[in-house]
Amino acid sequence: MAKPLILVTNDDGITAPGIRELISIMNELGDVYVVAPNKTQSGMGHAVTINATLHLEKVTIGDGEQQEWSCSGTPVDCVKLAIDQILPKKPDLCVSGINHGSNSSINVLYSGTMSAAMEAGIEGVPSIGFSLCDYTYSADFRQARRFIKSIAENVLKKGLPKGIVLNVNIPAAAEKEIKGIQIARQANAFWAEEFDRRTDPRGRTYYWMTGKWVVPDDANDTDEWALDHNYISVVPVTFDLTAYHFLKELKKWEF
Amino acid sequence: MAKPLILVTNDDGITAPGIRELISIMNELGDVYVVAPNKTQSGMGHAVTINATLHLEKVTIGDGEQQEWSCSGTPVDCVKLAIDQILPKKPDLCVSGINHGSNSSINVLYSGTMSAAMEAGIEGVPSIGFSLCDYTYSADFRQARRFIKSIAENVLKKGLPKGIVLNVNIPAAAEKEIKGIQIARQANAFWAEEFDRRTDPRGRTYYWMTGKWVVPDDANDTDEWALDHNYISVVPVTFDLTAYHFLKELKKWEF
Repeated sequence: MAKPLILVTNDDGITAPGIRELISIMNELGDVYVVAPNKTQSGMGHAVTINATLHLEKVTIGDGEQQEWSCSGTPVDCVKLAIDQILPKKPDLCVSGINHGSNSSINVLYSGTMSAAMEAGIEGVPSIGFSLCDYTYSADFRQARRFIKSIAENVLKKGLPKGIVLNVNIPAAAEKEIKGIQIARQANAFWAEEFDRRTDPRGRTYYWMTGKWVVPDDANDTDEWALDHNYISVVPVTFDLTAYHFLKELKKWEF
Repeated sequence: MAKPLILVTNDDGITAPGIRELISIMNELGDVYVVAPNKTQSGMGHAVTINATLHLEKVTIGDGEQQEWSCSGTPVDCVKLAIDQILPKKPDLCVSGINHGSNSSINVLYSGTMSAAMEAGIEGVPSIGFSLCDYTYSADFRQARRFIKSIAENVLKKGLPKGIVLNVNIPAAAEKEIKGIQIARQANAFWAEEFDRRTDPRGRTYYWMTGKWVVPDDANDTDEWALDHNYISVVPVTFDLTAYHFLKELKKWEF
């Protein structure tokens, strides 16, 4: 039987430790094609490059049987180019990550990692985004290897319903401290902005975006709860954003 | 009674005809603050600027009583900066657009216009994105003036439930041809990629992203249907992406 075709991408760039670990895991499961940004693209959300040219370069990075292309575009560009220009056929699975930093809760919207996974989902490819709740470049990505492999194997075997991708977040904990996997909903949380306002050497004001992560949602069925309790959170995510529960009420409005 | 405080932004840039029309309409409804990108930011999705500095400039463009700031960042940056650094208090309404081009269906994910509206929604501000299904810079934005005003007035009066923003698309039709407003769900549709592959003067391959808009969904309750039939579509959009209907099934998986 032919091995499954697996597309790997990320938003931290093709040389980031997180994607190297993910490639290594996926090499155990199928034929791996990597199409990932040639530089960091964190916080790019679902951005696409429509007013500039895109470039692809075949590269060889590290060991392994994967084939790799470095791309000048955003994570979503990478998925689109991979499917349209590189892959021999539609992939059986797309995995994105492992992101350096959490993509829990509302971060799913800001995340290039999750947007890449969602783009593959839009194109009908079963797809998963993986993130580790540790922003450091030198974070240890090995501790969740077993779980990542198991989640990917499940999706390869069972597929995912049309319109759904998985958002997987891994706590920054040693392997033996990870309690397992929790299926969860997206917590209600947000970034309270705290811009750092400074003055440049020419006297002009500028800002750095910072922010405080606020989680007013203390229920025990959320991704935030799971991560706080050393579980890996798995949230099924849809890209049909319609608020169906408000349609009926909105139809009563008079315009 | 104090006039409502209205934040206006967009993704086509602060001088685009679409936002100028929107500002003019909002000046009839409240005290208007404009914080919008200093250049086009189309297709930026929910991108945020986390690895670079942000700059704001107080500007005066055209007539009207609005106060305006031009921002170096993305549409989402504009909303965050406005709320944290510029507005005297949390706004009563945020409107984004009028976008030059459709943001119906899945385009809600790629759209900087809608991401700005969603960001305001995340921060608890009733929020609406407006788009005209005409990509030309010289498009006539006046034909839907009456409807835009009515939708904004409704939201100012009734508010919106927590977690919901409105995605409003306007057909490219003369005022007398517009049949009214349809409350709709997001159509199931996607861009079939067709990259335009070229060779640069130095012999290197590069790509332009193009694509064909495909709408497999022919039901009559979608935004695509409404727009095709010269209705203005209004889709209530949520930023809780949890696919609740799949939670139960996913919990049965063995990892």
